Amino acid sequence: MRESSSFRKNEGVFFVEGARLCADAALTDLTINELYVTDKAIEKYSDYVRLVEEKAKRCFVVSEDVAEKLSDTKSNQGVFCLCKMLDKNTNIGKIKYNRKYIALESISNPSNFGAVVRTAEAVGLDGVIVSGGCDIYNPKSQRAAMGSLFRLNVITTDDLPALLKQLAENGMTILAGVPDRNAEKITEVDMSGGVVAIVGNEGDGITEETQNAATKLVTIPMKGRAESLNAAAAASIMIWEMMR
Amino acid sequence: MRESSSFRKNEGVFFVEGARLCADAALTDLTINELYVTDKAIEKYSDYVRLVEEKAKRCFVVSEDVAEKLSDTKSNQGVFCLCKMLDKNTNIGKIKYNRKYIALESISNPSNFGAVVRTAEAVGLDGVIVSGGCDIYNPKSQRAAMGSLFRLNVITTDDLPALLKQLAENGMTILAGVPDRNAEKITEVDMSGGVVAIVGNEGDGITEETQNAATKLVTIPMKGRAESLNAAAAASIMIWEMMR
Repeated sequence: MRESSSFRKNEGVFFVEGARLCADAALTDLTINELYVTDKAIEKYSDYVRLVEEKAKRCFVVSEDVAEKLSDTKSNQGVFCLCKMLDKNTNIGKIKYNRKYIALESISNPSNFGAVVRTAEAVGLDGVIVSGGCDIYNPKSQRAAMGSLFRLNVITTDDLPALLKQLAENGMTILAGVPDRNAEKITEVDMSGGVVAIVGNEGDGITEETQNAATKLVTIPMKGRAESLNAAAAASIMIWEMMR
Repeated sequence: MRESSSFRKNEGVFFVEGARLCADAALTDLTINELYVTDKAIEKYSDYVRLVEEKAKRCFVVSEDVAEKLSDTKSNQGVFCLCKMLDKNTNIGKIKYNRKYIALESISNPSNFGAVVRTAEAVGLDGVIVSGGCDIYNPKSQRAAMGSLFRLNVITTDDLPALLKQLAENGMTILAGVPDRNAEKITEVDMSGGVVAIVGNEGDGITEETQNAATKLVTIPMKGRAESLNAAAAASIMIWEMMR
């Protein structure tokens, strides 16, 4: 059940596993519908569990057997919660026009997605704009993000080109990363004001419609032979260049 | 059989799958013991297959059924080869003291390993020094590296500290990446001469012995909250800084 992305989408909820991650979720403005916890975990992770308990609408103490069934890992901590997914187009109003964001268009690999969110938080970006792609609450993405998914501002949109145009009208620089030697080098772009850097799908890159909404096409200059960087590496470098 | 790292180590061979990858392997100075190819593949991938055939000691035409058993993927191309692993301490003599290298100490995740090698080739590093960690010829690592493993200079060593000391004595700057705010910022390090940047194990970082062999401890300055970057992201940024 947990593994099913359709379940998560239909019900509008997602599962979080682990004492620390559940506490991270409790500290955001996400709604926590249910907490599932074992007796052992109440004792062992009392601080974390208390945080989640205060926030959860319903709490269930479950047996070790049930915890094992709920778990996505080999040895579970006995702490799980069921959170309400963000509605589409949530948090758009929170975008600050003088800050730095990365926009991920149709990133399909949840581990890539989670790794980029983790890097974004590490270097100090203000948020991640998400359009299409994998289920962002996939267990793999949660594991790769190490809690960043809950701490970082995650902005979802079902119309990325329209959002980018609106941000450009408000003075933001919108950079589309493309593997094109004629595009401006990422090392030479003025990043002083508000910036959104777009990273595209692993195979297909950024859609034409979204490229058209960008104010500038940029490229990561490469001296080597590999056709292109993988999506996560390209995103790491673009994020890094925005903040260094 | 293919999945077993102990098999690969005992026999000193590793398996490569796919027309393009086998051809990449054939273009290096690796020894190709055996080529396995289906009739269909001989026709469909004739150019690639010819390259491998010229280099392989023995060639076998196999049935589709055997190809399916040999394959690590759902739909295989019908081209496989068995290569001789590099001996330990191979290629050390090829290190050029005025060039740029990354050293990977005990990277345990083959996908991370492969992604770093791919990034290293993309940005134009001169080679990757490998000490311990995962089997570098794991199928996952090969897939993530997209052929870079065969095109890039891969240098293996069973005594990384000793090698680094020797390189330092020959004038190279040896940088150990550590999550320590007091270390020199990677953006402020002089990278003009020959440089080796070391990236450590995903969980444990760089061993003390190897840190002691470095000429400088460096850090990636972070403005955000994540405890640290993941190993692949940290490696991407360090590699990028060496070459930008």
